[in-house]
Amino acid sequence: MTLQTYLTEKNKLVESCLDQWLPREDAEPAKLHQAMRYSLFAGGKRIRPILTIAAAEAVDGDISKVLPAATALELIHTYSLIHDDLPAMDDDDYRRGRLSNHKMFGEATAILAGDALLTFAFELLVRESIGAGVEAEKITFALLELSSAAGTFGMIGGQAMDLSAEGQKVNLDGLETIHKCKTGALLRAAVRIGAGVSGANQEQLQALTSYAESLGLAFQIKDDILDIEGDSQKLGKQAGSDLLKDKSTYPSILGLQEAKRLLNQQIDNSLQSADIFAEKGKILRDIALFVRDREF
Amino acid sequence: MTLQTYLTEKNKLVESCLDQWLPREDAEPAKLHQAMRYSLFAGGKRIRPILTIAAAEAVDGDISKVLPAATALELIHTYSLIHDDLPAMDDDDYRRGRLSNHKMFGEATAILAGDALLTFAFELLVRESIGAGVEAEKITFALLELSSAAGTFGMIGGQAMDLSAEGQKVNLDGLETIHKCKTGALLRAAVRIGAGVSGANQEQLQALTSYAESLGLAFQIKDDILDIEGDSQKLGKQAGSDLLKDKSTYPSILGLQEAKRLLNQQIDNSLQSADIFAEKGKILRDIALFVRDREF
Repeated sequence: MTLQTYLTEKNKLVESCLDQWLPREDAEPAKLHQAMRYSLFAGGKRIRPILTIAAAEAVDGDISKVLPAATALELIHTYSLIHDDLPAMDDDDYRRGRLSNHKMFGEATAILAGDALLTFAFELLVRESIGAGVEAEKITFALLELSSAAGTFGMIGGQAMDLSAEGQKVNLDGLETIHKCKTGALLRAAVRIGAGVSGANQEQLQALTSYAESLGLAFQIKDDILDIEGDSQKLGKQAGSDLLKDKSTYPSILGLQEAKRLLNQQIDNSLQSADIFAEKGKILRDIALFVRDREF
Repeated sequence: MTLQTYLTEKNKLVESCLDQWLPREDAEPAKLHQAMRYSLFAGGKRIRPILTIAAAEAVDGDISKVLPAATALELIHTYSLIHDDLPAMDDDDYRRGRLSNHKMFGEATAILAGDALLTFAFELLVRESIGAGVEAEKITFALLELSSAAGTFGMIGGQAMDLSAEGQKVNLDGLETIHKCKTGALLRAAVRIGAGVSGANQEQLQALTSYAESLGLAFQIKDDILDIEGDSQKLGKQAGSDLLKDKSTYPSILGLQEAKRLLNQQIDNSLQSADIFAEKGKILRDIALFVRDREF
């Protein structure tokens, strides 16, 4: 199966679970449920849930048992985008070409919709995992991974550090810490949850953790490189915006060549980590190559 | 033991757990952890955790096993106060006589501190419950109760309904629905979690659920009555503010006498529900009487 076919297929699967498990738009309070669905069904690529599924498959897991946790990861990711876009935070009026949640529904509803997606992530994870026959010990494992990755030593902490670094020069260590927390922690949790719920052994869990850590950094480095070399049309956003904002990035700190070297090194790490799964690690390796070669 | 002694003792116990389990103020990102602790240690009465403990005691439970979940309830309650105070929501500059979180730390940090307390509630519940030797099935029970009570059909839903009812006349049904969701759901979850984690049977669980539902309504009716009859000095806030804001309340809809009759009826329900625990229900009954007779 080509990676593109795989991604399309799993994206559909995740969307159908989200649609099935989320409160309907007409359930009261209707405006709140509409706001939750508005941001959740805005064309996200579902990277985190897909990583959960791919990790489960790499260790011969049952996909239906990891779908609740996979879906919960997407709810957490979506809530973070809604809150990050708020006027007091990054103040973005648009997201994926559409009005951001607070521009569409007002700030109060956007704050509540974010809170609700975050809260519902945990409810859905527990309820639907029980429904899928996942053992309680594995549910609590997934909950610990998810909540710590989303917390102050993970995603929320990264956003706080990013906000306080605004307009300041950050060194390489600082930049790496921010990215590891802000985006890396949830990617790491995604594969660990997929593997752990599927009953992976320690060696498998460690290989996948290492895979995801490298992949997360590679993703960010590539983002920074595309902002310099990318085609605005393909990117769907203006290239060069990091330079304009005088933002610290891998190329701005290391230079473009060294950033590319670091990108390749991280991708190699990911590929090697996936090697222990032999044929079953193919999708994981394809995802890593895609991260390296993407033009958008 | 008098109720006052009990409340003071349990308050201290809950505070010491919170202090022990929460990230230190100097852990990075320090400002965020400071903001979380600022609102958490602002002199709250810890009603929800105390109800959890009292419910556990009523069914002969082990307090140390319900403390993690009890503490998690307080984290959720505190996050909701921080977000409710935000300019886009109720826009309150003060809370319990101190600057509200966003006035003290700025809006971005207040939003993140709220998100972090909510997220940490689930992390703490799982981690510390495992540490206290609670079975995984009971942890997932507590998680489901907590997340659904805090969600769009509970607390968040109630806040959304409250915001959209602002400046509008609400009828008795509407008022009751808002209160049941906004404050009632978490009180209900508090006793159900205390009982469920302690291995209560169905009859006990139902009695406590009924106890808490009546107590929650009684609490709100009494609040509304105090706004009319109370002494501003004892209340620590200006009486008569509901009238000024033209807010729908139990007395404004039913009249003062009928509101008092309804208060007494709810308290009677609570007392009767607690009766099945005989001597072990004494604290629960004392709490109900306190809600009826309080002057602040």
